[in-house]
Amino acid sequence: MRRLNVLNQASKQITLSAFHYDEANCSEKNLEKPEDCLEYKSRPGVSWINVDGGLAPDLVEKIGGYFDVHPLVIEDILQPNQRPKLEEFDHYLYVVLKMFSLDKNNKTIIQERVCMILGENVLITFQEKPGDIFDPLRNKLRHNQGKIRKLGPDYLAYSLIDAVVDYYYIILEKISEQIEKLEDELMNTPTQKTIHAIHNLRNEMLFLMKSVWPLREVLDHLTHDETVIIKPTTVLYLRDVYDHTIQIMEQLEILRDIVSGMLDIYLSSINNKMNAVMKRLTLITTIFMPLTVIAGIGGMSEWTMMTGAENWKIAYPLFILVTILIGFITYLYFKWKQWT
Amino acid sequence: MRRLNVLNQASKQITLSAFHYDEANCSEKNLEKPEDCLEYKSRPGVSWINVDGGLAPDLVEKIGGYFDVHPLVIEDILQPNQRPKLEEFDHYLYVVLKMFSLDKNNKTIIQERVCMILGENVLITFQEKPGDIFDPLRNKLRHNQGKIRKLGPDYLAYSLIDAVVDYYYIILEKISEQIEKLEDELMNTPTQKTIHAIHNLRNEMLFLMKSVWPLREVLDHLTHDETVIIKPTTVLYLRDVYDHTIQIMEQLEILRDIVSGMLDIYLSSINNKMNAVMKRLTLITTIFMPLTVIAGIGGMSEWTMMTGAENWKIAYPLFILVTILIGFITYLYFKWKQWT
Amino acid sequence: MRRLNVLNQASKQITLSAFHYDEANCSEKNLEKPEDCLEYKSRPGVSWINVDGGLAPDLVEKIGGYFDVHPLVIEDILQPNQRPKLEEFDHYLYVVLKMFSLDKNNKTIIQERVCMILGENVLITFQEKPGDIFDPLRNKLRHNQGKIRKLGPDYLAYSLIDAVVDYYYIILEKISEQIEKLEDELMNTPTQKTIHAIHNLRNEMLFLMKSVWPLREVLDHLTHDETVIIKPTTVLYLRDVYDHTIQIMEQLEILRDIVSGMLDIYLSSINNKMNAVMKRLTLITTIFMPLTVIAGIGGMSEWTMMTGAENWKIAYPLFILVTILIGFITYLYFKWKQWT
Amino acid sequence: MRRLNVLNQASKQITLSAFHYDEANCSEKNLEKPEDCLEYKSRPGVSWINVDGGLAPDLVEKIGGYFDVHPLVIEDILQPNQRPKLEEFDHYLYVVLKMFSLDKNNKTIIQERVCMILGENVLITFQEKPGDIFDPLRNKLRHNQGKIRKLGPDYLAYSLIDAVVDYYYIILEKISEQIEKLEDELMNTPTQKTIHAIHNLRNEMLFLMKSVWPLREVLDHLTHDETVIIKPTTVLYLRDVYDHTIQIMEQLEILRDIVSGMLDIYLSSINNKMNAVMKRLTLITTIFMPLTVIAGIGGMSEWTMMTGAENWKIAYPLFILVTILIGFITYLYFKWKQWT
Amino acid sequence: MRRLNVLNQASKQITLSAFHYDEANCSEKNLEKPEDCLEYKSRPGVSWINVDGGLAPDLVEKIGGYFDVHPLVIEDILQPNQRPKLEEFDHYLYVVLKMFSLDKNNKTIIQERVCMILGENVLITFQEKPGDIFDPLRNKLRHNQGKIRKLGPDYLAYSLIDAVVDYYYIILEKISEQIEKLEDELMNTPTQKTIHAIHNLRNEMLFLMKSVWPLREVLDHLTHDETVIIKPTTVLYLRDVYDHTIQIMEQLEILRDIVSGMLDIYLSSINNKMNAVMKRLTLITTIFMPLTVIAGIGGMSEWTMMTGAENWKIAYPLFILVTILIGFITYLYFKWKQWT
Repeated sequence: MRRLNVLNQASKQITLSAFHYDEANCSEKNLEKPEDCLEYKSRPGVSWINVDGGLAPDLVEKIGGYFDVHPLVIEDILQPNQRPKLEEFDHYLYVVLKMFSLDKNNKTIIQERVCMILGENVLITFQEKPGDIFDPLRNKLRHNQGKIRKLGPDYLAYSLIDAVVDYYYIILEKISEQIEKLEDELMNTPTQKTIHAIHNLRNEMLFLMKSVWPLREVLDHLTHDETVIIKPTTVLYLRDVYDHTIQIMEQLEILRDIVSGMLDIYLSSINNKMNAVMKRLTLITTIFMPLTVIAGIGGMSEWTMMTGAENWKIAYPLFILVTILIGFITYLYFKWKQWT
Repeated sequence: MRRLNVLNQASKQITLSAFHYDEANCSEKNLEKPEDCLEYKSRPGVSWINVDGGLAPDLVEKIGGYFDVHPLVIEDILQPNQRPKLEEFDHYLYVVLKMFSLDKNNKTIIQERVCMILGENVLITFQEKPGDIFDPLRNKLRHNQGKIRKLGPDYLAYSLIDAVVDYYYIILEKISEQIEKLEDELMNTPTQKTIHAIHNLRNEMLFLMKSVWPLREVLDHLTHDETVIIKPTTVLYLRDVYDHTIQIMEQLEILRDIVSGMLDIYLSSINNKMNAVMKRLTLITTIFMPLTVIAGIGGMSEWTMMTGAENWKIAYPLFILVTILIGFITYLYFKWKQWT
Repeated sequence: MRRLNVLNQASKQITLSAFHYDEANCSEKNLEKPEDCLEYKSRPGVSWINVDGGLAPDLVEKIGGYFDVHPLVIEDILQPNQRPKLEEFDHYLYVVLKMFSLDKNNKTIIQERVCMILGENVLITFQEKPGDIFDPLRNKLRHNQGKIRKLGPDYLAYSLIDAVVDYYYIILEKISEQIEKLEDELMNTPTQKTIHAIHNLRNEMLFLMKSVWPLREVLDHLTHDETVIIKPTTVLYLRDVYDHTIQIMEQLEILRDIVSGMLDIYLSSINNKMNAVMKRLTLITTIFMPLTVIAGIGGMSEWTMMTGAENWKIAYPLFILVTILIGFITYLYFKWKQWT
Repeated sequence: MRRLNVLNQASKQITLSAFHYDEANCSEKNLEKPEDCLEYKSRPGVSWINVDGGLAPDLVEKIGGYFDVHPLVIEDILQPNQRPKLEEFDHYLYVVLKMFSLDKNNKTIIQERVCMILGENVLITFQEKPGDIFDPLRNKLRHNQGKIRKLGPDYLAYSLIDAVVDYYYIILEKISEQIEKLEDELMNTPTQKTIHAIHNLRNEMLFLMKSVWPLREVLDHLTHDETVIIKPTTVLYLRDVYDHTIQIMEQLEILRDIVSGMLDIYLSSINNKMNAVMKRLTLITTIFMPLTVIAGIGGMSEWTMMTGAENWKIAYPLFILVTILIGFITYLYFKWKQWT
Repeated sequence: MRRLNVLNQASKQITLSAFHYDEANCSEKNLEKPEDCLEYKSRPGVSWINVDGGLAPDLVEKIGGYFDVHPLVIEDILQPNQRPKLEEFDHYLYVVLKMFSLDKNNKTIIQERVCMILGENVLITFQEKPGDIFDPLRNKLRHNQGKIRKLGPDYLAYSLIDAVVDYYYIILEKISEQIEKLEDELMNTPTQKTIHAIHNLRNEMLFLMKSVWPLREVLDHLTHDETVIIKPTTVLYLRDVYDHTIQIMEQLEILRDIVSGMLDIYLSSINNKMNAVMKRLTLITTIFMPLTVIAGIGGMSEWTMMTGAENWKIAYPLFILVTILIGFITYLYFKWKQWT
């Protein structure tokens, strides 16, 4: 889908880091080898293992193995093009999200996949590239802000999803701005470029809608999850994010409808312009064509005979005057008939 | 969504007032401090606490705390952009509504959010700005009109919702009028402005539809509520409001379809006009182009030789006459062929 | 909705009449006072009380009170704009229908609301104006035709609904005729008026569809009614009317699609005409513009010098002939290229 | 629906015939009187009674009475416009089908209704006109081909339905051919007639879709029938026909979408042609208008003075040459700019 | 459906081959006679019998008979036009797939039907022509790659379906490329051919969508299969393919929407071009028409009288200069008014 202003960026470099916290303490470590993950498997408290640049088969397979993840899930994590989904297993949930962010320079929407393995006391996340989207969360953990340290890995997962969904609003805001800009263009100086911009915007929104839809489903399933992994307290928070996705869907639909309407306006505006051009042409033709005939008749020798050659001082200016007058009257008639 | 003629207006000033009534008595008080709410918590009879300008975090948190409201609900009340929704808790319901009213001067639809906490003997409402929409209701309470004083806070909540929904009809009426005005414009003097007005109207209606839809759902859930908060007698009344929202949806759909059809009419009308202009151009060209050639041929010296220079008195008027005649015949031919 | 050719007509005069029948007897009475209804409340046999012009609050409230009708239903009957609906109560059903009839003179569809209270041995109907639509039914009752006298008030209600639904077919027939007329117009002499007629027709159909849809639901619920009011034998008949409403919906959808397609045809026909006009213009221009240049060159004194002033008798007719010839050749070239 | 190329043909003449068969024997008889049907009522083996031209009330009522058919079903059989449906009764099923066939001469689709009463050992069919569509089946019965003689009346009903559905494929084939023809026309010489043909085709397809849809439902219900009339072995066969109707629906949808797309192509092709005409006009105007001015200037006496009257032999041809040259250069400029 | 670039190719030559494997061994044999299949019926391990060119009634009937396949299934396998479906029988499943591949030379999508009979220890596949799409799978079997030899025939069936679905991605890729090519064409040099290409592409996609939809249903049913034929381990894999079909559906919908938008762009681009042509025509007319009148007036003898015949050396160049100047000023006025 390179045609869209949506980019997939997977970084090559892989970093592996782990947070471990409970209400009292919070430790943070960069892991050198996948084997270092093992210590978090059954350690009390909550562990968050984050893999940046998660397309390295060896690494993913090893980590997956340590935490008894199903081979198909491991395969899935390694495949780049996944739609958001939720798969429930006995002792963990597998969640795939799509994260959108903006590259402000070239106005591009960057799309990134985030995979999560959510166990009872551990959360493993796989990001395609190191991003700062989760940094505020890390700070919350470090400084024990909010209730994040008091709750389990399901609340951590909720916080991550919430951060991802909040970014959708920023994208929406940007699209909204672009629409306003395009509407201004449409009102003032619409060109064929405007129409291509509208077309691209529509395709981008189409793409977003197709991503939000399954995300909504994921959240719907999470809030109705019957395993013990999602605690009832977290369900309320997830329902809140679920409401946000519905709101995003609705706003996308409104925006899309607005954009669709703009195409009609553009078409009618071209036709209107053509109409104006045609009227101008008709005006010019209607004024000057009769004058051409009159000038032709005035150019006959009979005219000179009639007026008498010696009377040219009166006849010639009079002829020119009458010609101009006829043109002017035609013009006024046009105005009066409101043809212009 | 500033592009739409829909405004969010949240007033800054906060007022806190309370009604307390049963079938026999009705007292009304302006509360100075949030602490004053506490007395209404378990007082027999029905209490209605109204907060105008409800975006003050301290106040909302305090009141929420007094009535054991979930922290997420408090957060929710403080967020400005909420879609209509219903959340059921053990001892209260949380309802969010969208209220639309008209600012008659600048033809703007003003949108306001109303949040309700409906408990067994208390109703707390949070309005974004002080409005007179609930004043008729207050009068009913004061003068014991209708059965409002005989029934519980659920009937009070119903009455508020009913007042909100009734305002939708006024908006519909206004849109209906605008459509009629635009249809007249389309019939008589359509311009590009008409098309932009249609576009804006369509977007406004889109926006309304997206607000009515979740409201309908809220009412559907309220009428099927299984807690003890909504009494069976009130359910019948709520079903009535539910019917109203369906009727509003249907009328919005009809109006939207009518507006969509207007775009087609506009396009065909532009094309029709262009056709008329083209015909006029063709008529002028067809009449005068041959005459130009004839005048050119008449301007040759051979013509004077042919007619004889001395016969100009006959030849010249005759020539002009014949020229005019040919033009006239062409015109009649056009008329006869119904090309004009 | 005054824009549509659909009228609401509520007569002012109120008449109150009652039928009472069983298999053997049938009596008919005009009631003077609402109190006269009371005798029918528990009289054995079937009673049909009909109120014409039913928007008189006093009357409706009194009758409602005699038959223990819920206050909300009474309010409902008095509100003019109701969509078709069914409400089930313990000892009666409340049904609202929309009746459409034609005012043949001014081609208007007249819309009337009929409300029914169907009890175990009584049917109360509220019509907005006295109509002859139920007269055939009255005759059937009087002359004991069909099985109407053998069955209960539910069959009577079915018969009334059936009469209402049968009128929809007449409306459909009329719309169908109008479509045929408009299609003829489109084929022969389409004008902007045609397009407005199509637009109005579409809106009318839209309006009908929105009325038939809830009627269909009412009938669906009636056939699945679990109270004892609708007898199993009547359910079969109601299912038949239900099938009719589905058929009406389908035909409306087909007709609407046909009408939508007509707009495309109209647009393409305008474009086609414009094309024809443009071709005519181009033909005229292509023929006469070169001739103007030729005539101009022929008007130069050099031409006379070249041909010799004395040879005008040959030169002049030849010149004219050649000019006409060139015009004719251009025309033939056009024909050959099939540009006309 | 006379506007569509779909005809209802009900023949006047009524014929009544009966087949009676079991695995060993098969007898065939033309019945004179409806009373003759009675003998088949409880005769062992399978009986098939066929009524051609089934709109004779007396006959249908009598036969219905002999086989204990519900009065509403009899009424239904006598009403000409029925959509396909299935009604289940205690000891029989009532099925209505729509049969489409082609009248090859005038390209008309003929529509016929077939009603079936399917009992445990008897099948009664009502056709509107004698048709040869069931003749192959009759031959199968006569010559004991396939398993038709081994199975009950439900398999016979299946065979009839299958024959009806197979005809839909022929109609589809024909529509498909027409579409190909119209697409060729669109590519080569589209006229307003093409667009009307497309419009008619679309309406025809619309009509077919609305007929196939309820047929699909009928078959769906038949395969889930819980009475003893449809044997489990037959259900498998019916499921097969059900699959066919789904396939027909899908192909109709594909074809309809293709036809809808053709309208856009037509519109763009008209616009394209208009573009070509405009370009030709512009070319002619651009070439000859400047020449007219030049010729006018050349026609001034000053030109003769300038060149000297005696030099006309050089001046005049030169002037004409230059004029032609300028025209030619303009033309080349046009070509180079790719404006033509 | 020959209009589409989709071909059905059924080869005439029939080949019959069998694989037999368990975890330890794998044998491969070309079968001469259908009777050779019998030995695989109850042999332990997994058997895969493949029939290429499966439209030979004798062969299919014999094989079907050996494995107790229902006669309707056999009939079904022999019918060429089947939509994807799943039918469950007591001891086997019958699956029909549609396989799409590309004929790279003539850009044609080739469509092939694959039928599968999946029993507890045997899989019988019927292909319409020998294809290399399953060769990688055969190699996996031969060299014991992956876990295919460790699992039953249901996993083998999954692998085949997976191979088929993977080909859909290749088709999608190709369509995506074509869309990009067409978008470039639209931007640069759109012709009527472009529009026909878009139309064809849309029809192709329509056709694909109608094929993927039932495939999705087949997979949905397979993953919820309650027989013992599909093992729980395989269900996870099938769910993966199911996700793929949903992804394919979504991408097809996105692509289709993009293509639909292209038609609007094309129409607006034609209109834009027409606008440009009209402007050019208007410019030329506006510049030269007044000049023609001026030249005509200059051609009158009075002009020569006025300037004096002897002053032509000044008067004539001045006249020409003024004429050119007026033309130039008109042009500048046009530029300034931004009419060009």
